[in-house]
Amino acid sequence: MVSDSPELSRLSLNQKTTNGWSVREATEGCVRAGIPWIGLWRDKVSETGLSESARIVRDAGLRVSSLCRGGMFPATTAAERRARLDDNRRAVEEAANLGTAVLVLVCGPAPDRDLESARSMVEEGVGALAPHAAEVGVKLAIEPFHPVLMQERSVIVSLAQALDIAAQFESDRVGVVVDVYHVFWDPDLYRQIARASGRIFGFHANDWLPPKPDLLLSRAMMGDGPIEIRRIREAVDAAGYAGPLEVEIFNQAVWDSPGDEVLDRMKERYLQHV
Amino acid sequence: MVSDSPELSRLSLNQKTTNGWSVREATEGCVRAGIPWIGLWRDKVSETGLSESARIVRDAGLRVSSLCRGGMFPATTAAERRARLDDNRRAVEEAANLGTAVLVLVCGPAPDRDLESARSMVEEGVGALAPHAAEVGVKLAIEPFHPVLMQERSVIVSLAQALDIAAQFESDRVGVVVDVYHVFWDPDLYRQIARASGRIFGFHANDWLPPKPDLLLSRAMMGDGPIEIRRIREAVDAAGYAGPLEVEIFNQAVWDSPGDEVLDRMKERYLQHV
Repeated sequence: MVSDSPELSRLSLNQKTTNGWSVREATEGCVRAGIPWIGLWRDKVSETGLSESARIVRDAGLRVSSLCRGGMFPATTAAERRARLDDNRRAVEEAANLGTAVLVLVCGPAPDRDLESARSMVEEGVGALAPHAAEVGVKLAIEPFHPVLMQERSVIVSLAQALDIAAQFESDRVGVVVDVYHVFWDPDLYRQIARASGRIFGFHANDWLPPKPDLLLSRAMMGDGPIEIRRIREAVDAAGYAGPLEVEIFNQAVWDSPGDEVLDRMKERYLQHV
Repeated sequence: MVSDSPELSRLSLNQKTTNGWSVREATEGCVRAGIPWIGLWRDKVSETGLSESARIVRDAGLRVSSLCRGGMFPATTAAERRARLDDNRRAVEEAANLGTAVLVLVCGPAPDRDLESARSMVEEGVGALAPHAAEVGVKLAIEPFHPVLMQERSVIVSLAQALDIAAQFESDRVGVVVDVYHVFWDPDLYRQIARASGRIFGFHANDWLPPKPDLLLSRAMMGDGPIEIRRIREAVDAAGYAGPLEVEIFNQAVWDSPGDEVLDRMKERYLQHV
């Protein structure tokens, strides 16, 4: 591909890239390197103090591209969801104080196997946060995460899904961050980026490393993980499939067990979970 | 979730679940456990011999739910793609000989960063294989893979994408395998399963284990991985974004390097790859 580099004037150091540095150290590093923008993280800002962090960055002449992160909306109880919303309101205030227009939202994993409910909780959370963010002039940038991180970080796993939520709000208030690591696999990527026009509030650059150890071997016996296997099997049956249901488990621990034991467990779990 | 188990008469042992067993051992294990179906793998079948494997399974009264696997279509040279197609034709023959109607296709990774070309090569490969498969009565079952395995196994990462290919063929000739591990994250899952009606040739049950070590830390410096960063950035710009471009790298090795060195490398790679 032969095309132009972006201007260095757009380069921003997200401070997670230099995780050992404090806000002051990262700021000074950017000044030495001639990098004009910095993306801040709340944990680092909190270590240095909010107003001190704002002062350090401002005095150095840096601009703040975004604050990471709000989000983490889904939780089992209404009380916990309210507590997280309160924390998100604080994150919005911090973003405003740091002089950035963008709060990045990492939307959170599901508290149980029910992905649909968790995704509804994200929508509700964004909806509850949006008016406050608009008041103080902070945009909410939903960051879709790679599906491999769904259990740890975010039930929002594609740009399409993030945009479906953002589309419920004014285009200058709720949008997306495009992180290449999280979206590059998506067959619908370029169409969704075009669809995001006017709602792209940030861009994260990095690259993919094949995870180690080999993920091929990380499959579990039915019931030992989060998958709604029965629900999926019933949907498959409802689509007219009535054939065999294979159990296929790539897992060294399973492979090291006596085969007959594996088959017994497999039958039990099949009846319980498939 | 309160709903019924499937009948044990549909349970199939995909022999990768008992990876230490030969075809004969897996067959005998199934007989002892009263499991009526088996899913075979070509490497195991080859160890035992094709006609001997077919005989063992048939004599035991087992039915073969599928043969794993054909596919691996994308390759850099036309000669290599032809060689892989030849191997796929052999896989089709083997499936027919083993008495199964289903050959599972793991479509293969991209040989370089260009996902679009790789995906075209998959379509061409399936198209070239389909007539021969139809002749001997073997159905081609495309297995979409979890995006985390895109670099190792398959550029086909969603049911939607697999069905877009299958839809170009008669519904009893090219379809999909639904493996819960590979598709459970998909926000569009149940709609796509319904869309797959008549084209579901298999179902794989297992469960998800969170990958270790933490994938949060597996992000690379731009240019060290497969992502078409510049293409994505240009698409983002074309969608009207003109703001800062953050570099965000979660990686212990990067974190352990001196910050100024990281920033220098970052600037260089930014100009080269973003």
